[in-house]
Amino acid sequence: MKVDGKQMRTIWVEGDGVGIIDQTLLPHRFATKKLKNLDDAAHAIKSMQVRGAPLIGATAAYGVWLAMLGDASDESLERAYAALLATRPTAINLQWALDEMVAAVRNRPRAERVAAALKRANEISDQDIAINLEIGRHGLKLIEAIAVKKDGARVNVLTHCNAGWLATVDIGTATAPIYLAHDKGLPVHVFADETRPRNQGASLTAWELGRHGVPHTVIPDNTGGHLMQHGLVDLVIVGADRVTALGDVCNKIGTYLKALAAHDNQVPFYVALPSPTIDFSVSDGLAEIPIEQRGADEVATMAGKTKDGHVVSVQVVPDGTPVANYGFDVTPARLVTGLITERGVIQASRAALAVAFPERVKLAP
Amino acid sequence: MKVDGKQMRTIWVEGDGVGIIDQTLLPHRFATKKLKNLDDAAHAIKSMQVRGAPLIGATAAYGVWLAMLGDASDESLERAYAALLATRPTAINLQWALDEMVAAVRNRPRAERVAAALKRANEISDQDIAINLEIGRHGLKLIEAIAVKKDGARVNVLTHCNAGWLATVDIGTATAPIYLAHDKGLPVHVFADETRPRNQGASLTAWELGRHGVPHTVIPDNTGGHLMQHGLVDLVIVGADRVTALGDVCNKIGTYLKALAAHDNQVPFYVALPSPTIDFSVSDGLAEIPIEQRGADEVATMAGKTKDGHVVSVQVVPDGTPVANYGFDVTPARLVTGLITERGVIQASRAALAVAFPERVKLAP
Repeated sequence: MKVDGKQMRTIWVEGDGVGIIDQTLLPHRFATKKLKNLDDAAHAIKSMQVRGAPLIGATAAYGVWLAMLGDASDESLERAYAALLATRPTAINLQWALDEMVAAVRNRPRAERVAAALKRANEISDQDIAINLEIGRHGLKLIEAIAVKKDGARVNVLTHCNAGWLATVDIGTATAPIYLAHDKGLPVHVFADETRPRNQGASLTAWELGRHGVPHTVIPDNTGGHLMQHGLVDLVIVGADRVTALGDVCNKIGTYLKALAAHDNQVPFYVALPSPTIDFSVSDGLAEIPIEQRGADEVATMAGKTKDGHVVSVQVVPDGTPVANYGFDVTPARLVTGLITERGVIQASRAALAVAFPERVKLAP
Repeated sequence: MKVDGKQMRTIWVEGDGVGIIDQTLLPHRFATKKLKNLDDAAHAIKSMQVRGAPLIGATAAYGVWLAMLGDASDESLERAYAALLATRPTAINLQWALDEMVAAVRNRPRAERVAAALKRANEISDQDIAINLEIGRHGLKLIEAIAVKKDGARVNVLTHCNAGWLATVDIGTATAPIYLAHDKGLPVHVFADETRPRNQGASLTAWELGRHGVPHTVIPDNTGGHLMQHGLVDLVIVGADRVTALGDVCNKIGTYLKALAAHDNQVPFYVALPSPTIDFSVSDGLAEIPIEQRGADEVATMAGKTKDGHVVSVQVVPDGTPVANYGFDVTPARLVTGLITERGVIQASRAALAVAFPERVKLAP
């Protein structure tokens, strides 16, 4: 998407290196960085200079290319695989991308490995964008239908956390329909939930919407229900970390509360996701998906910019206060209006998912 | 309640002055302050060194006493009334307390006015505590019933914002049942919602529970629904800014989302309030109660303590980001299990409220 008029991706080839946006500096500073070798790529993932499952996968893929550039031996390939896999052990996209890279490189002579790695890494990036574009096209129809009904008045979309282009190679998932609608000239406006404790909505989503020129308003996580009660939200679009075979949605903590409010006020609640996010081996999200508990510091402190421009972390609870920090929650399928995937908008039910992804269901245990 | 072992109120007579806790310094610093004259009292309210409707009322009452101490003339009384009323124009308790003080002082000879003012201000304070104690006794029964069922396991209460003793003269409203249960030896534990944007839960509620020794955990506002889905909340108790004749509850923004989650998970949702909070002139809270929009800074920034102990405000959104800051929302009566008042636990319905407060209904237009 655009950063103040300039078209960008979150990751790109730059000579014999890989360019990224250092996302740890956002939203208060925008800076790019050049990854020159395997260590740089592993560090970028580990330190969260890049984040979001699709972008992590793409970075790992380019990391294998960088490793091959330095040394195209089998040992180097194995070392790259192990080092990159260890950066974020729970990211499924990471392992998938690494397996793809090894498959593309392994059975080739050394002289061909660099080119083969670059080709496959580029394909992985392009494929992410192609999927997001399809999600965007299907979601765009939902926004268009509302825009017609509202006859020129702005269409208000509420989103939670950041399922934006910064989390992918480009376009994003939950943001894909929004960017397509905006670029088409539809009067779309986004309410971005702050998304405590890590504030991805107030920092990343607000930053990327602002840089691309999409009208938006940051709201505290407490506010969405009130807005829906007063007809100020036309639809909700969120991302997903995992969707079950029944259509239960595991996403950033707080998603469930917005789904309840949408349901109570007859506001359509959509989840945008690339289909690999669907885990056909899991049915009941609430009972079967373990929810990660994260460090206390994310709740006890908040990072921001001081008046003199320094970014610091400040403590927002009394000394020694116990806190709890659950990373995700599960929104039951009954609260989900539809799943926006690259194959269309699908009802959140076992039957509809099985019809849309027959090849996946057969593979599930 | 107790502050590290020492019994305190939020306001007290100290020789020829009035002691308060400077709440603008909480939770990172605890300091008391002596108000010596009318200006000090007005400044304390205006600068939010004292906050919470009942405490504002009590401070205004003592402010009239301080004015009489300096000059017991009619002009001085009028000046005090006007100056104190102007501090927080929308606080209903403030006007009520001032009217009470004028009624107690006006028709007396100057020589008796100081004593009469002190007597009435003390009564206003004591009456607040007496009401909160009754709220506590009625709410305690709810906690006791759960404690019996849970057979020794801790009773988890979720609360939002600060309806604690810091907002009143002592004991608080939503916290009253909690303090009584804790002091009786029941194993009560509180999940305190952070309550963005002003963080009253993470700062004030966590501070007062911690100082009194009540086990508690601060959670992001996004977390309560997940906890309820997993049986980790036994009941919700929140305060109220206004309750309608139908039982609709206007309270801090985000209360509605917790009420929805409680309803979806069959968790009892109670609202604790002194009966003057009920406004019998209003029925449909959603349609009739205008919701105050507050300044952008509260959302765009966050105050906290730096590593070297300074309290600073940091900006948490990109430069120039539009934000919305609604102060309150309305929870429809259908989501409220009961209203805990000084007259008992009352169903949130027009019929039940009319039976409990027959004298109030007749007065409504």
